[in-house]
Amino acid sequence: MTEQHRPDADPAALEEENEYDPTASSLKGAVDPAVMEELLSIRSSIDNFDATLVYLLAERFKVTQRVGWLKAKHQLPPADPAREAAQIARLRRLAEEANLDPAFAEKFLNFIISEVIRHHQAISEDHQARQGDGSIEAPREAPTANQG
Amino acid sequence: MTEQHRPDADPAALEEENEYDPTASSLKGAVDPAVMEELLSIRSSIDNFDATLVYLLAERFKVTQRVGWLKAKHQLPPADPAREAAQIARLRRLAEEANLDPAFAEKFLNFIISEVIRHHQAISEDHQARQGDGSIEAPREAPTANQG
Repeated sequence: MTEQHRPDADPAALEEENEYDPTASSLKGAVDPAVMEELLSIRSSIDNFDATLVYLLAERFKVTQRVGWLKAKHQLPPADPAREAAQIARLRRLAEEANLDPAFAEKFLNFIISEVIRHHQAISEDHQARQGDGSIEAPREAPTANQG
Repeated sequence: MTEQHRPDADPAALEEENEYDPTASSLKGAVDPAVMEELLSIRSSIDNFDATLVYLLAERFKVTQRVGWLKAKHQLPPADPAREAAQIARLRRLAEEANLDPAFAEKFLNFIISEVIRHHQAISEDHQARQGDGSIEAPREAPTANQG
């Protein structure tokens, strides 16, 4: 947080500095105003989708984190190839129904999984460090996750 | 579609073959049944999130496709650095609010943008090919998109 590093700065100024400008564009002044208006209208929908995606992904990671704890507690392997194959086949089918490129849907799932696996190491190490004190039910608040 | 390549196959058998098994797991039989039950319960939430993500991404790409058409029609450049910088700063802030790693949110946006740019070439080429017949309002049904 910027505020923590600049305790003397004016909070109102910082607020303004951090404020999102939905009209930010390198095209300003170089485009017909009516075209720019249409572009900004479409972009406001994109912004809404992106906020939804961020909150949805945050929630998905909370859930995979639960899988991580469960797997660490019961010494289960992080990867589950049969599960992953079923997930990919399902997502490709859903993508076709949604008129989304199935190859992109698969790439997307792999992107998420790679992030989850990157975090998994932390949860596993954390569990090993805590095994002596019986506190696996209350793991630290670290960004951790698991494939699921 | 499998059906298109195997017209003689039994539709019911194909249906079954394509069916998603939410219990698919390489851990079957190697895990305590109560643990497996808990794992499957969490996984059913992950599956719901993934379906939502696929449909949401499909809708987001429909919207960026509109930006692509607009930019092609008015000969606007595909990239808009000021817009991208504002998007990234906003998503990082939203990620912090959602307790999601801001670096992951930025990587995620870049992942989406790279897909959009990959498709953008097609929309631009398509427009150039159609410029003579005035049909830009009704572009072909190809997987196209634009950064936005």
